[in-house]
Amino acid sequence: MPEIRRNPLSDTWVIIATERSKRPSDFADTGEKHKKESKTCPFCLGNEHLTPPEITALRKNRAKPNSQGWTVRVVPNKFAALQQNGSPDARKKEMYDIMKGVGAHEVVIESPDHNKELYEHDEEHIFNVLKIWRSRYQELGKNSIIKYTQLFRNYGSAAGASLTHPHSQIISTPLIPKNIMEELEGFERFHKEKGKCILCDMVPFEAEEKVRVVTENEEFLSFCPFAARFPFETWIVPKKHEKQFSEITDQGLSHLADILKRTLKMLAEKVNDPPYNLILRSAPYSVNENEIYHWHIQILPRLTKVAGFEWGTGYYINPTPPEDAASYLRE
Amino acid sequence: MPEIRRNPLSDTWVIIATERSKRPSDFADTGEKHKKESKTCPFCLGNEHLTPPEITALRKNRAKPNSQGWTVRVVPNKFAALQQNGSPDARKKEMYDIMKGVGAHEVVIESPDHNKELYEHDEEHIFNVLKIWRSRYQELGKNSIIKYTQLFRNYGSAAGASLTHPHSQIISTPLIPKNIMEELEGFERFHKEKGKCILCDMVPFEAEEKVRVVTENEEFLSFCPFAARFPFETWIVPKKHEKQFSEITDQGLSHLADILKRTLKMLAEKVNDPPYNLILRSAPYSVNENEIYHWHIQILPRLTKVAGFEWGTGYYINPTPPEDAASYLRE
Repeated sequence: MPEIRRNPLSDTWVIIATERSKRPSDFADTGEKHKKESKTCPFCLGNEHLTPPEITALRKNRAKPNSQGWTVRVVPNKFAALQQNGSPDARKKEMYDIMKGVGAHEVVIESPDHNKELYEHDEEHIFNVLKIWRSRYQELGKNSIIKYTQLFRNYGSAAGASLTHPHSQIISTPLIPKNIMEELEGFERFHKEKGKCILCDMVPFEAEEKVRVVTENEEFLSFCPFAARFPFETWIVPKKHEKQFSEITDQGLSHLADILKRTLKMLAEKVNDPPYNLILRSAPYSVNENEIYHWHIQILPRLTKVAGFEWGTGYYINPTPPEDAASYLRE
Repeated sequence: MPEIRRNPLSDTWVIIATERSKRPSDFADTGEKHKKESKTCPFCLGNEHLTPPEITALRKNRAKPNSQGWTVRVVPNKFAALQQNGSPDARKKEMYDIMKGVGAHEVVIESPDHNKELYEHDEEHIFNVLKIWRSRYQELGKNSIIKYTQLFRNYGSAAGASLTHPHSQIISTPLIPKNIMEELEGFERFHKEKGKCILCDMVPFEAEEKVRVVTENEEFLSFCPFAARFPFETWIVPKKHEKQFSEITDQGLSHLADILKRTLKMLAEKVNDPPYNLILRSAPYSVNENEIYHWHIQILPRLTKVAGFEWGTGYYINPTPPEDAASYLRE
C-alpha cells in the first residue's frame, strides 16, 4: 500500500509509491556518467581572463587578482540571471506585477582542478570553500536591495549543470522566495503548537529513531527526510539552533566540511555518482528576533523525472522509501 | 536587464533572464526525438491483456470489454501511485503526518495507434478523448474519499514519459493539492481587490494586448502567460467562467478539441517536437458557491532544466520572454 507523508516544514505531501517501488540498488547502474572536458574551460587555471573580473579568491601566494595561484575563486556569472546595479522599481501592469532583475549571481569555482569533485578534496580544502560560501552570504547581506541569498550546486547535466568544472552558484534576490516564506510559516506553525523549533525537535528524534540517519558528527546530522521527494534525498542539519548560515563559526564549518564530504562520498559511491542539486536553506536577511528558522542543506539526487503530476499538484511521487535509502547508504 | 514577473494566480515569481536569453529559434534543433517502439507495448491493439482490466472504453462495435475494437481506452495504472480501496486513516507520528495512499491512478490510452500523437488525430477523435477525460472527472468525483482529480499528459522522456504510446494519466488524491490551494488563494486575493475572477479579467486583457496570444477560437484563448516559467509555456483558458472541467458542455469540448489540436501542432512543428507536460487545473470537488476558480490547461515544454535555484527558492529562470515565444508560434 502506498503511503502519503507530509513535510512539516513546507506543508507539502509526498506519495511514497510502494507499488512502483524501486529498491535503492535499482539506481546503482542508472547514474549518469559525468564527462569531463577541460580544453577551454573558463574555470581552469590559466583561463582566468575567460570569466568576468573576480569578486574574491583564496590565494596561497600574494599573486594579483585574476592571475593564477588561487585555490578557490568567486566570479560574477557571465550570463547573470540577476544584475547587481540599479533598484527593482517594482510596478504594476494591469493584473501583473513586474520589477527589474536586480540582485546578484555569482559562481564559486571550488578548485583549479577540473576533475576533482568537491568531496574528493581533503577536509581543509572543503573548509576553505565553505568559508568562502559564508563570506559571500555575509557580504551580499550588506546590500539593502538583497533580501535573500540562495546558494546551490548543480552536479551532472540531468541536474542542470552546463559546465563540468566543480562549482557552486549564488543568486541573491530582491524578494524573499516563496519556498522560504512557506518554511517560515511551517516553523511558526510548529512553534505555536509545541513552543519549539521543528528542526531542533526533529534532529534528536531522527537521531534516536536511527532508521533514516545517513551519518552524523558532533555538530550535524545527515538523514533522509521522512517525506523525501526524491530517492536518496538527504538533509544535513546543524544540531544547534542557528537561523542563518552566515552565523556559523569556524568550528561549525569544519564539522560541516566533515559531514558534507562523507555524505557526498556515500552518495557518489553507493548510488553510482548520481546527478544532484544541493541547496542551502537559510533565513532571509531581514529575519527578526521572533521569527523561527533553522538553516540546513538539502541534497536532491535527480534519479526520477519531475512530470505532470508534480507540476499539477505540487506533490511528489517517490518510489524509494527514505528508510530504505538511508539504510542502503549506511551499509 | 532581466525582469522579475509575478504569476498572480500562484504568487510565484519568474526571472525573465534576458542576459542568458535564448531566442525561440535556439530551441528549434534541441528538441528531443521521441523514439517509437511498439513490439510489446501494453497500449497497442491486441495487447489488452497486458493492462489491468479496463475501466471504460469507446468502442465502435459492440465488442466485449478488454477485447479489440476500441478507439479510446481507460485502464488502472499497473504501477499505481495511489490505490482505489480503503480509507486514508490519517495519523500522526511525532512531528510527522502520514496517511494511506488511497485515491486513483488511471491511464487514458488515447488511440490504438502507437505512432499518432494526440494532435495528429482529427478533431472528432480528439473530442472523444476529451469526452472520456470529462467522464472520468465526473465519475471519480463520486468517491467521497477523493478531493481532487489531476489529469496530466507527459510527452517525451525528458518530460517523464516512460511509454511512448500516446496516453494521458489521471491521479485522484484524498487531499486538495498545494498548488490548487495556492491558486484558490490567488483567485480569492484578486476577487477581494477587484470583485472579479482573475482569469475572466486576464483573458480579454491578453486577447486585446495580443503580444502573448498563440491562437484563439470562439470559446478559448491560447496564450503564453506573462510570468511563464518555461520557454513556450502556453495556457488554454475558457473565455467563459467555469469552475470545474467536469462542467464543460459538448460544444465546449469541441472548441477545446480545436484549440488543443492547433496549439499542440504549432508547438510540435515550430519548436521541433519538444517534450512537454500538459496539466489540467480544475477546482477541487468540494469547491463551494463562494469560492472562485476557473479551470484551464497548462502546457509546459521541458526545454530547460529545473535546477538548484528553482528547488531552493520556488522561483524560476526563463531565458525566453513569453512575448517572443508567442510571436514565434504565431508566425
